Amino acid sequence: MRAATIRDGEILVEEHPDPVPGAGEVLVRVRAAGLNGADMMQRRGLYPAPPGSPADIPGLELAGVVDQLGQGAQRFAVGDRVMAIVGGGGQAELAVVHERQLMPVPAALDWPEAGGLPEVFTTAHDAIFTQAELRPGEHLLVHGGAGGVGTAAIQLAKAAGARVTATVRREELRAQVAAFGAEVISPEGFAGGHTARGAGSGTQPAGPGRAVCPGPFDVILELVGAPNLAENMNALAAGGRICVIGVSAGAKAELNLLALMAKRARIHGSTLRARPLEEKALAARRLEHEVLPLFESDALRVPVAETFPLDEAPAAYDRFAAGGKLGKIVLQID
Amino acid sequence: MRAATIRDGEILVEEHPDPVPGAGEVLVRVRAAGLNGADMMQRRGLYPAPPGSPADIPGLELAGVVDQLGQGAQRFAVGDRVMAIVGGGGQAELAVVHERQLMPVPAALDWPEAGGLPEVFTTAHDAIFTQAELRPGEHLLVHGGAGGVGTAAIQLAKAAGARVTATVRREELRAQVAAFGAEVISPEGFAGGHTARGAGSGTQPAGPGRAVCPGPFDVILELVGAPNLAENMNALAAGGRICVIGVSAGAKAELNLLALMAKRARIHGSTLRARPLEEKALAARRLEHEVLPLFESDALRVPVAETFPLDEAPAAYDRFAAGGKLGKIVLQID
Repeated sequence: MRAATIRDGEILVEEHPDPVPGAGEVLVRVRAAGLNGADMMQRRGLYPAPPGSPADIPGLELAGVVDQLGQGAQRFAVGDRVMAIVGGGGQAELAVVHERQLMPVPAALDWPEAGGLPEVFTTAHDAIFTQAELRPGEHLLVHGGAGGVGTAAIQLAKAAGARVTATVRREELRAQVAAFGAEVISPEGFAGGHTARGAGSGTQPAGPGRAVCPGPFDVILELVGAPNLAENMNALAAGGRICVIGVSAGAKAELNLLALMAKRARIHGSTLRARPLEEKALAARRLEHEVLPLFESDALRVPVAETFPLDEAPAAYDRFAAGGKLGKIVLQID
Repeated sequence: MRAATIRDGEILVEEHPDPVPGAGEVLVRVRAAGLNGADMMQRRGLYPAPPGSPADIPGLELAGVVDQLGQGAQRFAVGDRVMAIVGGGGQAELAVVHERQLMPVPAALDWPEAGGLPEVFTTAHDAIFTQAELRPGEHLLVHGGAGGVGTAAIQLAKAAGARVTATVRREELRAQVAAFGAEVISPEGFAGGHTARGAGSGTQPAGPGRAVCPGPFDVILELVGAPNLAENMNALAAGGRICVIGVSAGAKAELNLLALMAKRARIHGSTLRARPLEEKALAARRLEHEVLPLFESDALRVPVAETFPLDEAPAAYDRFAAGGKLGKIVLQID
């Protein structure tokens, strides 16, 4: 099979031996595989694949057709449309996935949408509901609202009856993020101060000098990193939860433990990739049960910015790294 | 009524008007009232009483006899032995408490024990079970194991089938803390490093040069503060929880968010005093149901270091501030 391959910090497309499904596993003929920030880190040697995943084939998510069943696998039949998070190896013509990690593809989704769904929606759902326990009526702040996890989180929270504010750095993306239902502010508007009673200006971005950030927030989803932590603590409601799942802007920050106590707050750190199979399978079951039906009813959608054929994987990586997009970059395999 | 009274940073004993129970409240004739660290802070003007509590009468807990019922109060009868956490005003001959905050005093406890129970056992139980969700078989580390909350946490965790390690700064208190069932180490032994497989030396304290801290820990109860945070992160197990409820040694610390993510860990801050009535009442119900029966069966005990009559409240405060004790300092009112 052919697969995107990491060689000395570069992405190539190379021939690999076909993988063979073991007990409980399924061989999937991949039709689409989304790119994620973790792929960029892995290409730079900063985020090696966990044991059991191909070390040199990137790709944390895939969608495709069941091609062959390993011994005892019974959740799906050959020919079924499936998708999954994987520890690595998703950006290839074939991939082996444990059947407990696979989910059915909702009929409403085409291949690029399905290939770009698992990672960001599982990450966002796990963070805001399983970790931070967002409740209907609560107010969620998403830092980094234009990213894949950000737009997934906004949609999931809105569908659950929460109010959502999002910071978006790039001015040209703010209207698109607002279209998902978030009140959008600039990072400077966030840093400028908060109102307790919600003087937010809807979809109109806050200027640097205007203190219109409509806090306080019950849950803050942190996709940017350390620079926000102090202001997050200020903007947090009593009993609030901060869930940190991205630190691209820095990992180390000063934490005021007395403020944490006074707000009876908590800070979660989370990552999906390092989890054992049973926890990933549990996250997949939650997604099947709580989220996938919302794609059938059009309450959720997977924004796809651009697709590339597998052979153009290097160009897809360059496109992802260039940023400025809203929506997934997906490799498509016909 | 007479009551301990804060005047310009000093403790006096002064006459006050008798309080009158409102709807749903109970007038309690106080027989014993424990001292807590918060009283010391309030005396120094650093921790004012919340609205609705007497501003100048300290005391966060009390035990006594029901003297009079406010309109509609029905959980207890005149003459019942009761105890409670209060927002303030506990160190007085009379106190008014909402009936939903009151708990019955287990028959096995005398007045000083009952007067020293509510604050530390509710705080410890809320922190390690309600917040940090300690499970049987897990390993708890208590930083500051010789304090009132520390000894309560050790006993509660042991009774729930957890393994417990505790740091104790004062060498002369280590054997007493070990007698509650904890493996005791020095703060230097903790900072010196951790073993993954438990090379702990049981009740034998670790010398400063020996790296015997028997981590990793599933839950860390932090009663000391910021200086421990970095090493707590190192010593934490995957999926571990740190609960910060004391910061006497400092409040601001650097937090590595990437380490928090990699361990899928969370950090809670908590304080009981600022909570609304319904949350305090809920904590009291949990204590009644899950903890008080363990006093009847002798699985738990309230260590009392020394009692003082109300008129000697100033001496009791001096004794508390001097430290070096294991067990509660309790005002007794006959």
